[in-house]
Amino acid sequence: MTLQTASLPAKAKELLDAANFVVVATSNTDGSPQTSVLWATYDGNELLLSTLQGRKKETNWLRDPRTSVLILDKDNPYGYIEVRGTVSMTTENGPELIERLSQIYTGQTYTGDDGTDNVRVVVRVTPSRVIQRY
Amino acid sequence: MTLQTASLPAKAKELLDAANFVVVATSNTDGSPQTSVLWATYDGNELLLSTLQGRKKETNWLRDPRTSVLILDKDNPYGYIEVRGTVSMTTENGPELIERLSQIYTGQTYTGDDGTDNVRVVVRVTPSRVIQRY
Repeated sequence: MTLQTASLPAKAKELLDAANFVVVATSNTDGSPQTSVLWATYDGNELLLSTLQGRKKETNWLRDPRTSVLILDKDNPYGYIEVRGTVSMTTENGPELIERLSQIYTGQTYTGDDGTDNVRVVVRVTPSRVIQRY
Repeated sequence: MTLQTASLPAKAKELLDAANFVVVATSNTDGSPQTSVLWATYDGNELLLSTLQGRKKETNWLRDPRTSVLILDKDNPYGYIEVRGTVSMTTENGPELIERLSQIYTGQTYTGDDGTDNVRVVVRVTPSRVIQRY
């Protein structure tokens, strides 16, 4: 099987640098879609998301790594970029990623995991198809 | 099979009356998720979306009517409501629905279908599960 890959457009990076939220879709056990709002950033051509071990999203991705990430544009509700791709996950640098995202989106140190046993997961999305609506 | 149903919360209706956009997820032929931004309103307990015959969303729903509709909140990017449910579609009152949505979201008459052969579809989502994040 050849994995189809696509480039992350400059506009997607611009939207994420400007702290625009994303809506992420995963597939539940029965194949039905599930969505949630997340922070996101990127590393080269790949999107980076943060989640927690045991969350619905994480267990869905472990079973089916295909996902759709819709990057919103707070300055233009009719503009958006959909990035379809495949997820790979690691706990390595999990705390560093949530801190990086917190700085982008809130300008402050992340405290949401303080005093918890939360295990932060780095979710890396390799784009297979990008649909830009502007 | 018993269809699980859920109520549309008052907050969801309030968000839609205030012209908040929704992100809709469907399942592609291969089972991978697909997302897009739409207008939405409601009829009692059901969400109403408008699409066109032949659009990816419509062909996906004809094959698999399960969907997830995430209602955004422009006043609070950390708040949202996810409505999972099942879609039924009809062309009846298709033009009336897109006009109703246009009035809510733009305050103007809808002209996007003028001079086209577009066939407007009314997409009715019966909620099976509602997840409110506030």
